Amino acid sequence: MTTIDLNSDLGEGYGAWSMGDDAAMLDIVSSANIACGFHAGDPASLLAVLRMAAERGVSVGAHVSYPDRVGFGRRAMDVAPDDLTADVIYQIGALQGLARAAGTRVAYVKPHGALYNTIASDARQGDAVIAGILAVDPSLVLMGLAGAPILARGCDAGLATVAEAFADRAYTPDGALVSRRDPGAVLHDPETVAARMLHLARTGTIQAIDGSMLDLQADSICVHGDSPGAVAMAARIRDLLLAEGVTIAPFAGK
Amino acid sequence: MTTIDLNSDLGEGYGAWSMGDDAAMLDIVSSANIACGFHAGDPASLLAVLRMAAERGVSVGAHVSYPDRVGFGRRAMDVAPDDLTADVIYQIGALQGLARAAGTRVAYVKPHGALYNTIASDARQGDAVIAGILAVDPSLVLMGLAGAPILARGCDAGLATVAEAFADRAYTPDGALVSRRDPGAVLHDPETVAARMLHLARTGTIQAIDGSMLDLQADSICVHGDSPGAVAMAARIRDLLLAEGVTIAPFAGK
Amino acid sequence: MTTIDLNSDLGEGYGAWSMGDDAAMLDIVSSANIACGFHAGDPASLLAVLRMAAERGVSVGAHVSYPDRVGFGRRAMDVAPDDLTADVIYQIGALQGLARAAGTRVAYVKPHGALYNTIASDARQGDAVIAGILAVDPSLVLMGLAGAPILARGCDAGLATVAEAFADRAYTPDGALVSRRDPGAVLHDPETVAARMLHLARTGTIQAIDGSMLDLQADSICVHGDSPGAVAMAARIRDLLLAEGVTIAPFAGK
Amino acid sequence: MTTIDLNSDLGEGYGAWSMGDDAAMLDIVSSANIACGFHAGDPASLLAVLRMAAERGVSVGAHVSYPDRVGFGRRAMDVAPDDLTADVIYQIGALQGLARAAGTRVAYVKPHGALYNTIASDARQGDAVIAGILAVDPSLVLMGLAGAPILARGCDAGLATVAEAFADRAYTPDGALVSRRDPGAVLHDPETVAARMLHLARTGTIQAIDGSMLDLQADSICVHGDSPGAVAMAARIRDLLLAEGVTIAPFAGK
Repeated sequence: MTTIDLNSDLGEGYGAWSMGDDAAMLDIVSSANIACGFHAGDPASLLAVLRMAAERGVSVGAHVSYPDRVGFGRRAMDVAPDDLTADVIYQIGALQGLARAAGTRVAYVKPHGALYNTIASDARQGDAVIAGILAVDPSLVLMGLAGAPILARGCDAGLATVAEAFADRAYTPDGALVSRRDPGAVLHDPETVAARMLHLARTGTIQAIDGSMLDLQADSICVHGDSPGAVAMAARIRDLLLAEGVTIAPFAGK
Repeated sequence: MTTIDLNSDLGEGYGAWSMGDDAAMLDIVSSANIACGFHAGDPASLLAVLRMAAERGVSVGAHVSYPDRVGFGRRAMDVAPDDLTADVIYQIGALQGLARAAGTRVAYVKPHGALYNTIASDARQGDAVIAGILAVDPSLVLMGLAGAPILARGCDAGLATVAEAFADRAYTPDGALVSRRDPGAVLHDPETVAARMLHLARTGTIQAIDGSMLDLQADSICVHGDSPGAVAMAARIRDLLLAEGVTIAPFAGK
Repeated sequence: MTTIDLNSDLGEGYGAWSMGDDAAMLDIVSSANIACGFHAGDPASLLAVLRMAAERGVSVGAHVSYPDRVGFGRRAMDVAPDDLTADVIYQIGALQGLARAAGTRVAYVKPHGALYNTIASDARQGDAVIAGILAVDPSLVLMGLAGAPILARGCDAGLATVAEAFADRAYTPDGALVSRRDPGAVLHDPETVAARMLHLARTGTIQAIDGSMLDLQADSICVHGDSPGAVAMAARIRDLLLAEGVTIAPFAGK
Repeated sequence: MTTIDLNSDLGEGYGAWSMGDDAAMLDIVSSANIACGFHAGDPASLLAVLRMAAERGVSVGAHVSYPDRVGFGRRAMDVAPDDLTADVIYQIGALQGLARAAGTRVAYVKPHGALYNTIASDARQGDAVIAGILAVDPSLVLMGLAGAPILARGCDAGLATVAEAFADRAYTPDGALVSRRDPGAVLHDPETVAARMLHLARTGTIQAIDGSMLDLQADSICVHGDSPGAVAMAARIRDLLLAEGVTIAPFAGK
């Protein structure tokens, strides 16, 4: 039987500001990457989304970030490794506290935004993130870009890892994401995207932007919820997967 | 045999800014109230001070605050109870994560600054703090002002509590701190202060500002380390207590 | 000929987070209270809204706040007067810089949220705000709640002042706003609200919640834009005023 | 007659945290690079240092930074040009407001820390900074590293510029600073440093780390004040220059 995880970035409001429809997305995904306050997320709204995740049995990940709220964690920062390690520990700990209060627990860690992109291949910052996870709880799973070196580094360091694919992104023939600056990088048609993800879940392969088929071992699919269209696309992916007999379940705990 | 705890506020630097001499104070006190990032404390410096506390066997408390770094948590804020509860959980969780990474654990919670003063008697915010502690870890001890209503409220809610006295502060005949705006509120002579604390530890009484003797049940004495003079006073208190056969030990774990 | 100003709070996004429809509101109002970064507003988005205001000839006010982004400036804070004065100067200066870059200028100051409410009657913080305005530019107009003591204090200190009414709020017979905790405090029907504002503009009177008529000298009407319904109500007020021959124009510069 | 400017980074405390001895340094330097709140500096302390600068006739510069308080502006950030331009405008405007309140004015702009280093040669961020200065006040002088491309870019864009040398740093034979990671990068002997600066002021040349003489056209010398030793070195430089007949005066206004 085919099983796959669906994950999404949630808890990304801040105080009076909201972002996306967390309640709707929690009915779609099996894993929620929840902000930890550094790029988004105030404690009260994080607690609320954690409670919703707990009610629905959605697995919780710490969506750790550079300390850059005004830039939403999307800007590369030259953070020294020791500082980055401590930043990761702090954020995981904070979310663990909130998760405990909400009746759930943090099962995995997914770096956010520019940190995610940087550590995909940067060993210095990547090792700092890994060190932070190991220091606070070595049983946490590290989520990263399918095929990226960070997953092997995490594995070598003793972490369980999980690879994710991006539902709405095109891939190069060698398995990288097509840059957002290039045409065709982002896919917009829900049916196309859902069919691609069904194919990926069943076969572990995906069609690259040049038409070739690509091996892409991914245990989780990242979907977005930051617009009504994004929520609809995520729902379509879920519906098609379920209709075709694919089980959607958190990777963590498998 | 007489035993008392000495506590101090530590980890109160922020990034490039330092405050006080944490290493010196960790050789004096038995309990360290460590900032959690809301009034002071960046993750890397908090991790460093937690490691020093762990090495010395000093007990660790979460020094939770209003979210007011520029005001150092010294300004009263009308934070809604649910927000305050979540703020407390977040801060405790973050410090727990760092403490775990440093090989120690958070044993108690001491609200900081304006939050400390407000909840001494304000039931609305006090209950919100208590709710936060209970939600994240009901085994945490709540430290508060000796004689203040917050201790009874915490106790009624099921928390262990510990009362503290302030080494360098004058008391009114009814057990309140003399306001800093009034003359004589702050004591400056280390010998006087040390002798008062020895008397307090032995008898549970202290001389009030009008000369009368006052019952003051305190299991911990708060000393400061934010100036060389403050460190010297703290050291003098410790030395006198030890010389006179008083044991200095953390209250938490007793 | 009757003239009145319409004002609204704009520039209240922050980084990736947006709030309200600034472009739509700038087509409705004659004065824009623009956030200065302390409760909302990052520099780039503030610059963008200032450029839109400049294009449309909408007057610009500095919407100064307590330093409380996570609380959106809605929580009372016990800020010391000297700190508050400097905070006000800093915010006005920052917005003046951005306004200059956008081809416009700051014409007035409207304190935001909890600061607005506090200084309506609190002389200590009110005088601190007034001192800040006087120090940076004494030609700036102070906007405040119609009937509140702050306006007289500003006037006595040498500031020009302007009184505002709130379009969607009920008034007590003595001219105060009905507390949001009381029933009927907020009006929801656009036609009713528009008719009330037309009556206010023409007569300087408004019906209080008990049915009595109340003198309310207001040179500006505050309308909201934080939801599609709010924008529609603001547009209805504008349309009715214009249809009935009332001129809508900024108070500043009159 | 030989004239040179001495500049230093001031106003770098934040709330309860202080850094360096601003009062002492203001008696030594002719130009003060004053923080604008993004890496350091709360409004009240900035206002205080601006008042001290005004009293002493010390010229004021806006020490603009990346928005990274916890990193003290020392970490490179990939800020988009439009955001950086707006950040620069905001900071200059804020300091202009405070300067006006203090009875002085902002005469120049010196980017801080990682921003200073990045724009020395990075045209994308450098042009964004230049655009910000031009947008808010094209009469402001841009201070930069002697010999760095940013000065020519500023000049080409229509800004007046001023080149600075670093008193305590060694230079490579081609005029770059020796990296702090290399031995001999930082000079510690006050007499040596003072003699080097006297030579530089008189001849426009300085001995490079390999012993060769180097042309270094600098109108200003940067001295530090973040430790008692640094203040003493700055004082020694000033004393020697004055004793040898060099006039110390702000470049801005020349």
